[in-house]
Amino acid sequence: MSKDRMIAFSDGVLAIVITIMVLKLEIPQSPEFLSLRGISANFLAYILSYVYVGIYWVNHHHMFGNLDYVSRKVLWKNLLWLFSITLIPMATEWVGFNPFEKWPTMFYGIILLICACSYFYLQREVIKISDYDLNSGKGTFKDSKAKFSIIAYIIATIFALKFTVVSYLIYTFVAIIWIFQGKVFKSE
Amino acid sequence: MSKDRMIAFSDGVLAIVITIMVLKLEIPQSPEFLSLRGISANFLAYILSYVYVGIYWVNHHHMFGNLDYVSRKVLWKNLLWLFSITLIPMATEWVGFNPFEKWPTMFYGIILLICACSYFYLQREVIKISDYDLNSGKGTFKDSKAKFSIIAYIIATIFALKFTVVSYLIYTFVAIIWIFQGKVFKSE
Amino acid sequence: MSKDRMIAFSDGVLAIVITIMVLKLEIPQSPEFLSLRGISANFLAYILSYVYVGIYWVNHHHMFGNLDYVSRKVLWKNLLWLFSITLIPMATEWVGFNPFEKWPTMFYGIILLICACSYFYLQREVIKISDYDLNSGKGTFKDSKAKFSIIAYIIATIFALKFTVVSYLIYTFVAIIWIFQGKVFKSE
Amino acid sequence: MSKDRMIAFSDGVLAIVITIMVLKLEIPQSPEFLSLRGISANFLAYILSYVYVGIYWVNHHHMFGNLDYVSRKVLWKNLLWLFSITLIPMATEWVGFNPFEKWPTMFYGIILLICACSYFYLQREVIKISDYDLNSGKGTFKDSKAKFSIIAYIIATIFALKFTVVSYLIYTFVAIIWIFQGKVFKSE
Repeated sequence: MSKDRMIAFSDGVLAIVITIMVLKLEIPQSPEFLSLRGISANFLAYILSYVYVGIYWVNHHHMFGNLDYVSRKVLWKNLLWLFSITLIPMATEWVGFNPFEKWPTMFYGIILLICACSYFYLQREVIKISDYDLNSGKGTFKDSKAKFSIIAYIIATIFALKFTVVSYLIYTFVAIIWIFQGKVFKSE
Repeated sequence: MSKDRMIAFSDGVLAIVITIMVLKLEIPQSPEFLSLRGISANFLAYILSYVYVGIYWVNHHHMFGNLDYVSRKVLWKNLLWLFSITLIPMATEWVGFNPFEKWPTMFYGIILLICACSYFYLQREVIKISDYDLNSGKGTFKDSKAKFSIIAYIIATIFALKFTVVSYLIYTFVAIIWIFQGKVFKSE
Repeated sequence: MSKDRMIAFSDGVLAIVITIMVLKLEIPQSPEFLSLRGISANFLAYILSYVYVGIYWVNHHHMFGNLDYVSRKVLWKNLLWLFSITLIPMATEWVGFNPFEKWPTMFYGIILLICACSYFYLQREVIKISDYDLNSGKGTFKDSKAKFSIIAYIIATIFALKFTVVSYLIYTFVAIIWIFQGKVFKSE
Repeated sequence: MSKDRMIAFSDGVLAIVITIMVLKLEIPQSPEFLSLRGISANFLAYILSYVYVGIYWVNHHHMFGNLDYVSRKVLWKNLLWLFSITLIPMATEWVGFNPFEKWPTMFYGIILLICACSYFYLQREVIKISDYDLNSGKGTFKDSKAKFSIIAYIIATIFALKFTVVSYLIYTFVAIIWIFQGKVFKSE
């Protein structure tokens, strides 16, 4: 039961994080076609953040699918990870209103970095208490990908100081890598 | 389990999409009776969008009721469909504040079209991996209805350029067709 | 399964309706103590609406606890009822900003009336397809209470034209009747 | 079933309460680095409130993990507790915009006090109807901690009149005590 409830709570928070970002999408100020341009940056930022939340959801789904019980520590580390996820809407909004500005771009990268680290930290705890084997097959790949992502976010954050376009390319590139894993798993 | 979690997550997003539209419903600016007129367009747009989300929810409910397992691809195609659904509140708000304007009406139709296409795309994947037979009985009807809807949205979007009223009639007509199917299914 | 999903979706919408009302609660404009007075009407309106949503949730919980399957009609009538519930936040906000004004008070009563009628309509459908016996014991009482509430809302709505205070007293009185039923039921 | 639904509803409300606080976090007004300072108080208040909601979620999770059935009274006392939790976002926002001001700090403490009391009241009801033994092992500790917290909140509320910093230290201190319990429980 404990596991189910943790999963339900996590799903609730993830679902609301996604929809908060929609809520922050302002409508064009006039009924003209060109007024859509004014919200294009916000829209692109929303797409990127939606994809990131989606990736986390799919991975979280996968990670706890193999788990039988949860410890109090897992609950708290999951809450810590959820906390970092709840910061995504704010970062998305700041970036959406200030695309190609140094600090918002950097801030977005830092939030992604915090999410990745807290997820990594949660994953370590999950491995400790379960038979979820990260070193075999799919697992290994994921672990190395997690480390790769963390390094990529750090690089993107540094690039944000001078070349914000490079930062966005890195953010997008990491997201694409996570989506196309080409793996199928069945539900039990 | 995987399936349950995907369904719970989808329900969460759909529930929040509906309530975001309520949140965007502004209250009349004065306590006078006539001030209700100022929000009537928003209110009608809300009703139409609520009905559309309700239709998708009932169909989604039905589609996955017959499914035993989900693949990673279904998860991602479901996320893609949910993404298109999250755009409905923005389209609704824009239409609500600018009824009978060309671009918002067209935009609303395009969003409905995207939702229909991504749902169709999700359904194809579900058929592939399951015994959910779209070509027998209820299924066939639904499939042809899906194609009909897509064509209707395209026509409505074109009409929006000149006769926005026709567009709204088409949107409403398609919604009515979906509601009155006259079918009863039991839960297991 | 169908039933579970319908219940989960309803709970999601009810939970969000409650929290939308919190979201609309504005904070006092200054850090002074007396500034709390400016939000007292909104706060009282929130309490009343929270209690109403709570009552519906408890009754919905009870009604479907005795049900084994759901028909497509139940799904749609449930969606209709949920739609009427989603109008509560708007009515609450309007009343909160314009306490003792004729139209908002009346509007609030009309929304409560719509909720009660759509719930009654849903209940009739549920009775038809299930062994949920409304005419025995607890059931009868509830049915007469539902009819009583509908009449009370109509009276309150009429009173709103002249004596808004009487309307609020009726709204509060009906809520109190529903809370204190003095019945205990066990979960299965 | 009843219990499951109550838990799902509570999780929904808690998840949304957390995310409403994120929604109220405004983005910095300019893309400058220093503009982040303008939202630091809001951010710290968000962290503290997130931790409090997290603590309640973990404890609620634990309390109902040992329960077999729920009575109508538990449903209503749970709704009362949820009501007090829904006031946290408003208190957090007021404190966030007016840090170190007398009344907001006091108001925040009063809301925490109401939450603690309504949770205590819910817990008493749960003990009455279940075999959840508060007087053995873990239970005792928790009960004394609950009483300690209530006293701490009262003291913090009084300190808010003169030394708001002391109030915040107490709020933080109580939160830290609740997190570090060093207990692990397995899910069944």
